[in-house]
Amino acid sequence: MSTDRLVVIGGDAAGLSAAAQARRLRGPEDLEIVVLEQGPEISYSACGIPYWIGDLVSDRDRLLARTAGQFEADGIDIRIQTRAEEIDLEAGRVRTSTGEQLGYDNLVVATGGRPARPPIPGLDAEGVYGVHRLADGADIRAAIAAGAERAIVLGGGYIGLEMAEVLRGRGLSVTVVLADPLPMAQLDDDMGERVCKAMGDMGIEVQSEQPVRAIETDADGVVRAVRTDAGSYETDVVVMGLGMGPETALAREAGLQLGVTGGIDVAHTQRSRSHPEVFAAGDCVQTYHRITGEAIHIALGTHANKQGRVAGSVIGGRPARFSGVLGTAVTKVGELEVGRTGLCTTQAEQAGFDHRSDLIEATTRAGYYPGAEPIAIKLISERGSGLLLGAQVVGGPGSAKRIDVLATAIWAGMTAEDLAGSDLSYAPPFSPTYDPVVVAARVASRIEQG
Amino acid sequence: MSTDRLVVIGGDAAGLSAAAQARRLRGPEDLEIVVLEQGPEISYSACGIPYWIGDLVSDRDRLLARTAGQFEADGIDIRIQTRAEEIDLEAGRVRTSTGEQLGYDNLVVATGGRPARPPIPGLDAEGVYGVHRLADGADIRAAIAAGAERAIVLGGGYIGLEMAEVLRGRGLSVTVVLADPLPMAQLDDDMGERVCKAMGDMGIEVQSEQPVRAIETDADGVVRAVRTDAGSYETDVVVMGLGMGPETALAREAGLQLGVTGGIDVAHTQRSRSHPEVFAAGDCVQTYHRITGEAIHIALGTHANKQGRVAGSVIGGRPARFSGVLGTAVTKVGELEVGRTGLCTTQAEQAGFDHRSDLIEATTRAGYYPGAEPIAIKLISERGSGLLLGAQVVGGPGSAKRIDVLATAIWAGMTAEDLAGSDLSYAPPFSPTYDPVVVAARVASRIEQG
Repeated sequence: MSTDRLVVIGGDAAGLSAAAQARRLRGPEDLEIVVLEQGPEISYSACGIPYWIGDLVSDRDRLLARTAGQFEADGIDIRIQTRAEEIDLEAGRVRTSTGEQLGYDNLVVATGGRPARPPIPGLDAEGVYGVHRLADGADIRAAIAAGAERAIVLGGGYIGLEMAEVLRGRGLSVTVVLADPLPMAQLDDDMGERVCKAMGDMGIEVQSEQPVRAIETDADGVVRAVRTDAGSYETDVVVMGLGMGPETALAREAGLQLGVTGGIDVAHTQRSRSHPEVFAAGDCVQTYHRITGEAIHIALGTHANKQGRVAGSVIGGRPARFSGVLGTAVTKVGELEVGRTGLCTTQAEQAGFDHRSDLIEATTRAGYYPGAEPIAIKLISERGSGLLLGAQVVGGPGSAKRIDVLATAIWAGMTAEDLAGSDLSYAPPFSPTYDPVVVAARVASRIEQG
Repeated sequence: MSTDRLVVIGGDAAGLSAAAQARRLRGPEDLEIVVLEQGPEISYSACGIPYWIGDLVSDRDRLLARTAGQFEADGIDIRIQTRAEEIDLEAGRVRTSTGEQLGYDNLVVATGGRPARPPIPGLDAEGVYGVHRLADGADIRAAIAAGAERAIVLGGGYIGLEMAEVLRGRGLSVTVVLADPLPMAQLDDDMGERVCKAMGDMGIEVQSEQPVRAIETDADGVVRAVRTDAGSYETDVVVMGLGMGPETALAREAGLQLGVTGGIDVAHTQRSRSHPEVFAAGDCVQTYHRITGEAIHIALGTHANKQGRVAGSVIGGRPARFSGVLGTAVTKVGELEVGRTGLCTTQAEQAGFDHRSDLIEATTRAGYYPGAEPIAIKLISERGSGLLLGAQVVGGPGSAKRIDVLATAIWAGMTAEDLAGSDLSYAPPFSPTYDPVVVAARVASRIEQG
């Protein structure tokens, strides 16, 4: 019996999940598994980097989820500091930076994401940082240790907000510069405004609708200010939270088919559309929205893990499929928690739904119980059928994770009336008699007047 | 046009929800609404009484959700200190304690629950308290103020646990005496043991499998000790948390049909089976389990509110139905949070399901994030189909409300595999990359070995 070889490019969430799942289903005699990782570490939590910068995580090594040794014990050959230089799809082999030509029977491309870098003059100046690699975290920590007092964060998405929060927490004066009118573009305006206000309350300055024109530097090439049409904002450091695109250079050069979003085009099995022996998973792929069916690119560790696992299952001989995304996400700014799932109003419009939206305000616990905090929930639903399309939650501690109830209801195809009738838990330390989710569902299921 | 009259017996969650909803749909010219409440107050939160005793709620009046004035402004005639003495179903009228004969076109019976009182000698002694009425709360507060140092709580359900927690919090030495082997009989033993351990850790003594034989009193008839087969436990106060049955004396005497659980037998519209013009709602009715379809009695404000609303809707001319219960519940003991929904293992067995159970342990947040606490989730599912039947959660802060995700999934008829694929939120302050709910669902959807 001959041994097949699986080569995995990328030693992070997607690649390692694929490798681990394939191994569970096929032993070392049946399948050799080689993982190529260009960096010095495998399996680190990029999502944890802001909290390491913020000193909430004491030790960088705590961001390392799994060690190479754990995989090697399972007979998975982990090669760090080894870049895949070229994929020869016809010959079925990968050329590595160590000069090897590594043949494969199956390939998993898990090259991850690439931080967006708009063509702004000066973006490569000293003092301008990303938040993608552990080295970025070390650089920003070093800048703070060296006395940085002012920071400008570019972008108001999750990473931008988290960075603003932790830098403020470390005592820097922080300005967030946005091209959009409000932070969290995936929220409706009325919810985004609550986030914006909370940022102001914790002393974070927000400069909105100001695309950055240039990063200004001093004579030594060190960042000095960020310039927009409205003015020039002096700063010691600039942190980029401008979103993440798919890293597909290697795949594209090899001739793998990309999708309309720029991510690698894969079927629900994570099998590439163009080459059936090649799979792809994680931040480098294009996936699909569960409600609209439309192609979408989302960089998130959860999806990367799941997609990798699907690829590993299929390679291991067990049918599996990735069931799409709702774009569920949570974050916090100080004490304000934010969650969203499904379609926001703009997305519902774009998708052609005849929709309504309902916003309610309640408290996280029984009003009389200590620690009861305001919570606002907005539901987007289809007019007539009542089908839930999307939800947004903004409120005090205990608010954000309620988005999971709504994500589950949307996932299951429930209507607002279904959810209003459902049996959610109640006790004074945890919710009012009607949980805010039920209150929102009830309002959304009311017959509209006029 | 003649005005109909709706009489509501009981001015709490169910009765007032019925009155309010009927009023929304039918104006005062069309429908006169009279609410009879035997006590001095309407609409108080019985669930909040333990927290008032525990000084977590400063002011008793904060437990009053709505005032009579709010209802009267809507043209609802609220009569406190007025007891319904007799219902004449044939004549369609209620005799009140003020001597009035009040005719009705529709009647809503919302007489609430009656705390269980087993035939234990001495149970009516001075120093033995319930936790049902605001007056009970006042009595227990007075006993503590008068210097009570030792308390015995009878029963390990939600009320028992909450009372043990708050009495311990006020500095009393607390012993919980159980007939069952473990507290929280609605949990499987392996989960109940975690609760029992947490009680011990906070200094609450648990004496299990000891049915109470007698309450011992001193010469003045004041409680002195609780006696079981294992011994006699001295105490200053005894608090009864022995569960709640339906209060149906009035209904039964009138001839309304009761169900097998002893609650008033109603259709899904909350219409009584025996008399179509009479509705019943809240702790006095029998309802049904959504999974098994079986008759069940559950005393909980959430259901009372919903059932009252259904009755009010139907009386108001708009179709509505109560969709059953899963028995979802949450509570806490100190920092330990507990949630449950659907069927526990014993219930799944009794219902004849070929079931499996899967228990996972994880953390409430990313392992490296401050405040990450252990959480255990147990899922009960149907073997083969994977249909989710029940779930239990025990863990640190942030654990309990995760039961709502599971309750929603069960409500929607999802399988473990559906839930494992769903798009739940992730960010380090809120969950590991895979939320514990997803981890549990994934394990439960694994094909069983052998």
